[in-house]
Amino acid sequence: METYTGIPEELKFAVLERIQPTEPEREKLFAIQEELASQVKIAAEKLGIPGVLVKMVGSAARGTWLSGTHDIDVFISFPEETSRKDLETLGMAIAREVARYAEHAEDRHAEHPYLNITYKGFDVDLVPCFRVASASQIKSAVDRTPFHNDFVKPRIKGHEDEVLLLKQFMRGGGVYGSELKTQGFSGYLTELLVIRYGSFKNTIYAACSWKPGEKIDIMQHGEIEHEEPLVVIDPTDPRRNVAAALSLDKFCTFIDHCREFLKNPELSFFFPAPILPLEDSEILEKLESRKSTQLAVVFKTPDVVEDVLFPQLYKMEQAVAALLKEYDFTVIKTGVWSGNTETAVMMELISGTLPNVKKHIGPPVWVKVHAEKFKEKYQAADGVFGGYIENGKYIFEILRKYPTARGLLEDRLMSCSLGKQVHQSVNEGFEIIENAGICRLKEYDFRIYLRKWI
Amino acid sequence: METYTGIPEELKFAVLERIQPTEPEREKLFAIQEELASQVKIAAEKLGIPGVLVKMVGSAARGTWLSGTHDIDVFISFPEETSRKDLETLGMAIAREVARYAEHAEDRHAEHPYLNITYKGFDVDLVPCFRVASASQIKSAVDRTPFHNDFVKPRIKGHEDEVLLLKQFMRGGGVYGSELKTQGFSGYLTELLVIRYGSFKNTIYAACSWKPGEKIDIMQHGEIEHEEPLVVIDPTDPRRNVAAALSLDKFCTFIDHCREFLKNPELSFFFPAPILPLEDSEILEKLESRKSTQLAVVFKTPDVVEDVLFPQLYKMEQAVAALLKEYDFTVIKTGVWSGNTETAVMMELISGTLPNVKKHIGPPVWVKVHAEKFKEKYQAADGVFGGYIENGKYIFEILRKYPTARGLLEDRLMSCSLGKQVHQSVNEGFEIIENAGICRLKEYDFRIYLRKWI
Repeated sequence: METYTGIPEELKFAVLERIQPTEPEREKLFAIQEELASQVKIAAEKLGIPGVLVKMVGSAARGTWLSGTHDIDVFISFPEETSRKDLETLGMAIAREVARYAEHAEDRHAEHPYLNITYKGFDVDLVPCFRVASASQIKSAVDRTPFHNDFVKPRIKGHEDEVLLLKQFMRGGGVYGSELKTQGFSGYLTELLVIRYGSFKNTIYAACSWKPGEKIDIMQHGEIEHEEPLVVIDPTDPRRNVAAALSLDKFCTFIDHCREFLKNPELSFFFPAPILPLEDSEILEKLESRKSTQLAVVFKTPDVVEDVLFPQLYKMEQAVAALLKEYDFTVIKTGVWSGNTETAVMMELISGTLPNVKKHIGPPVWVKVHAEKFKEKYQAADGVFGGYIENGKYIFEILRKYPTARGLLEDRLMSCSLGKQVHQSVNEGFEIIENAGICRLKEYDFRIYLRKWI
Repeated sequence: METYTGIPEELKFAVLERIQPTEPEREKLFAIQEELASQVKIAAEKLGIPGVLVKMVGSAARGTWLSGTHDIDVFISFPEETSRKDLETLGMAIAREVARYAEHAEDRHAEHPYLNITYKGFDVDLVPCFRVASASQIKSAVDRTPFHNDFVKPRIKGHEDEVLLLKQFMRGGGVYGSELKTQGFSGYLTELLVIRYGSFKNTIYAACSWKPGEKIDIMQHGEIEHEEPLVVIDPTDPRRNVAAALSLDKFCTFIDHCREFLKNPELSFFFPAPILPLEDSEILEKLESRKSTQLAVVFKTPDVVEDVLFPQLYKMEQAVAALLKEYDFTVIKTGVWSGNTETAVMMELISGTLPNVKKHIGPPVWVKVHAEKFKEKYQAADGVFGGYIENGKYIFEILRKYPTARGLLEDRLMSCSLGKQVHQSVNEGFEIIENAGICRLKEYDFRIYLRKWI
């Protein structure tokens, strides 16, 4: 077992100095929250909509936001008996009324529509919700949020800095954010970890020994089994795993980040040095030293939000890897990158070419009907090099249909099961670039991605 | 299910015409057997060795030899109570006395020494054995043979032609011969099949539906379980499987040969067209069309009999394939060929080269002690391209030690577990030839082997 050196207080101060909201920042945020709350009330009155309450939720409301983030979540709460239709139309009417004073407004859609506005420089979500009796009786996913707020706020009081440290530490490790692109830790999850373990430090120490199946149930009320690597039962809903979005690899990356940090507690675990984009010459050097085959399937970035796009890209990544494996190519790794205009599914292969001859293994000779059918089929087929018996099975050496990965993808990519928007975009056209060809992709962010890739 | 067309009588006649010993051939063989028998008796008397009997065994004694084969087995039978030492010295003394009239004599050794002589153009084995009460009480493996003779001779009478047909059919299919090179059917096994099934035709029909584990127990006295694909309990020894030497692939090759024959009963199944040696130009053509990598490990043929050599070659074939797989090369197939001067272990690979980068998969991150050790080791190692977490496991991209199969074999072949004589020979020197390099091997028999190989 490692013996860890502990976390110096000076380090924590140095981090907090950079992430704690300043007093003027706090005052401004609170003032804006007040303003928005009264705007909602005024709008409801003006539109003659009764029973509306305003709830400030999220990290802004709980004092756990990182300095520099300007997100405010305003929940417009309707009586439980309101119909879905009324919730949507009346809720959005109020939101739009508030938006009259905003610099910018945009309709968004989760389970229900909501309005995202820019208000005095803040990024504000105006979200209609039902006011239900408990989080286990919610009518819409967003109804849960006010309960989270009620649970966390009193318990986190005095520990806000610990949450800030943990959030920034997770950012530094690339595991902060529960959106479907990142599949990491949500803000609420971070708060629950601090409530459970008492501090940033204790969370880090505990995580070093986490295993998949790790379970945290603060209220001791979990009702069902969960399959995810980390199970944190929602204190406001015994059936929900707050860490359901956390992938196994992000779970492990966090464990690794904690262990490395405790071995050598440094500022860089919170604020890693920026990654420099890879130059053409570096790409060529790396290709030459690895001598593997790099392949990228490049297509126009579909015009959808990341939470829709990335699950489709991850699905495509799996499908492409499966296709390559099915046709005998050995995949070293796969990845996805998506920029403003172009998106790439990346693959590294042992080799992009295979021999023309393919060993096709048939059924055992003694499984008579199958074996005879198999033999008849291949004996008479075109391009058969030869046949023999090995380990009791018929083997035919047949002509490989796709001796190059490029040819395979060009011909069969569209037969992969792809998500709707990705399918559309790929169907409009895609390009397969290989090895030095990837120098064609110049986007700064792609070149940063490449430095991690090769 | 196939419906077979039956076996035309004319076909059988046509085959028998070529393999049935002619009357003069039979007379001559019988005369020579008589001569040898009396030679043995005279020798025993002359040397003053009492209790010696002569037993003519083998196909010559049972009338089931193929025309043109001139093998005679003369067993010199001693009383059971004879010591091993006496059996060997007295038995060989008698044999040597007989050998005085031979054109050529050569000491050979199975479990005991015996003498192989050429006598009036016949290939004769003079084999000392114990005269035991039953085959289950044998003192030496050869003691069993006279019992085989006693069992087969009366039962095969009148069916000798059926045995001849089956033997020749197996020859045509490359499955006749129980020596360790061939791992096929022995003559005795062929006779037992005809006794069991009644005829050549019935044997062929039955074999079409054989499965591994097929059991034939004519005397219904089998005592132990056998693992081999075909189990034919020795009628003279309930513990012995007569088909123990038959490999799974030869078992299957025979099944296949039977099925194909019944689909299209032709003379070529008994007398296949000779295989022509592959010319250099054909080798190059085939390499170009297959585009795989051919490798041959070539060394001086060890000076031992095939029954010693081939098990060692098969073992080497396995060991080399395992070595290549261990280092990530994909083996399509392996084979061995052995000529008078040179021997080659053949391998066909997807590719003889691999990238420099090798994906090294470590333990899951949560298996703390192992995972941390693994990470520490590779993080600090030379030639590491990078590391990441995938499916919960640490992955390091390390520098591949052997990016070519040739380099691997040159460096590590001697670390393979090799048989004694093969080890000696390989240790004295070996050559690795690749692709067009195999044109260097000119032996006629190798070029015939090559035509089957590629």
